Amino acid sequence: MLAKIGVVTVSDRASAGLYEDKGGPAIVDVLSEILVSPWQPVARLVPDDIAHIENTLIELADVEGCSLIFTTGGTGPALRDVTPEATQSVCHRLLPGFGELMRERSLAQVATAILSRQTAGVRGKTLIVNLPGRPSSIRLCMLAVFPAIPYGIDLIGGARLETDPAKCHAFRPPA
Amino acid sequence: MLAKIGVVTVSDRASAGLYEDKGGPAIVDVLSEILVSPWQPVARLVPDDIAHIENTLIELADVEGCSLIFTTGGTGPALRDVTPEATQSVCHRLLPGFGELMRERSLAQVATAILSRQTAGVRGKTLIVNLPGRPSSIRLCMLAVFPAIPYGIDLIGGARLETDPAKCHAFRPPA
Amino acid sequence: MLAKIGVVTVSDRASAGLYEDKGGPAIVDVLSEILVSPWQPVARLVPDDIAHIENTLIELADVEGCSLIFTTGGTGPALRDVTPEATQSVCHRLLPGFGELMRERSLAQVATAILSRQTAGVRGKTLIVNLPGRPSSIRLCMLAVFPAIPYGIDLIGGARLETDPAKCHAFRPPA
Repeated sequence: MLAKIGVVTVSDRASAGLYEDKGGPAIVDVLSEILVSPWQPVARLVPDDIAHIENTLIELADVEGCSLIFTTGGTGPALRDVTPEATQSVCHRLLPGFGELMRERSLAQVATAILSRQTAGVRGKTLIVNLPGRPSSIRLCMLAVFPAIPYGIDLIGGARLETDPAKCHAFRPPA
Repeated sequence: MLAKIGVVTVSDRASAGLYEDKGGPAIVDVLSEILVSPWQPVARLVPDDIAHIENTLIELADVEGCSLIFTTGGTGPALRDVTPEATQSVCHRLLPGFGELMRERSLAQVATAILSRQTAGVRGKTLIVNLPGRPSSIRLCMLAVFPAIPYGIDLIGGARLETDPAKCHAFRPPA
Repeated sequence: MLAKIGVVTVSDRASAGLYEDKGGPAIVDVLSEILVSPWQPVARLVPDDIAHIENTLIELADVEGCSLIFTTGGTGPALRDVTPEATQSVCHRLLPGFGELMRERSLAQVATAILSRQTAGVRGKTLIVNLPGRPSSIRLCMLAVFPAIPYGIDLIGGARLETDPAKCHAFRPPA
């Protein structure tokens, strides 16, 4: 089964064409590096608008059938940052451990990591994970949480993902 | 005062008799090992049904008068996992530090620890703590958080628990 | 621009005059030690009453125009502890990373740190951070999170804070 993976860049400037989207391509780069099973990205570029982000997440989960969606951007404390709210709103349940671990790992790099409100959750058979906006932070956060993602997607009934263990050691308990 | 401690196994298979309950006995084993004050377990085995779990937690807290309740099972991301929701629903306040610490300690053992949504909270004079389903993870999580539990129960007006300091060094600030 | 910083001591006993407020002065001491830009404390002493705490936070944020508010006290599991509830109620968004980091650092000192429900959040242009009640814990927690605070306040449009880098290395990304 081909795994569809949503890649949602949340940025007023990038979606208005004033700024090149670097977050979305950074996510695709990391996925290309670590995944060895068949997959296909489904990319979207949206402004920092809560209804727009919600609708995009719902479309990618329910219509496109993505097993996994990564967002980038909009997780800070500023008024325009609404990606965590949109994620929380469309998810049936939240997974607080993802945000905790990503903040902890980011904190080893930069003291302002605690300002990030990034979270993760499940909508039906789709796992949604918020990533920061900067490409270097995206990579750090993806490598931190990806070892848990293939088994997490198994548990919710999504597509089977296989990683290159030399790049990312995904854990599945013995059957 | 005899401390009553609720031990709630949440499992469709174990409650249907298709599977031996190993989680409940594992909790009792750790309690027997670390507690030196008088206590009595009050065990329950329930399916992964939110109303059933809620009613059991309420009965153990309000009718049985348990000062502490441990649950095991039902904290994962799958649709049938509803123990954290039931816990949140019956608690008057949540204690996020318990879930944070249990996930952090579990993460040193297994990458999928971040999939656990386990939490803790207070209902009246009862502290409720979610544990994972596997006996080895139960022990790890109990030993991680137990040092804070006797003082936590003091603060909410429950029974006084005393631990063997060689097994679990419970902290109480000097009076 | 002079930065106003709210310092809210939450304590039934201190507000009734039965007990000297040590938490508020401990916060002012740490601020005096680490800040080198102009600032002014706005101190309040309130009982453990949710409406009273909420009204005080709203007044300090909306009327006094504080860019930052620290509370001390009322974050434990006991029934009278309602500072996190009041904070959550008046904030437009929460910053879970602050509580996570403060609990983690406190845990290195004392096992009961996981009983603290302290949180942080944003109300308009004001960052609100809950601190514990004990002066030694206040200092530990402030030094843990302060490196992220000046940039956090920049992002929400509050006053510019500058710290003495020898005392607290506040991080701002290059413009």
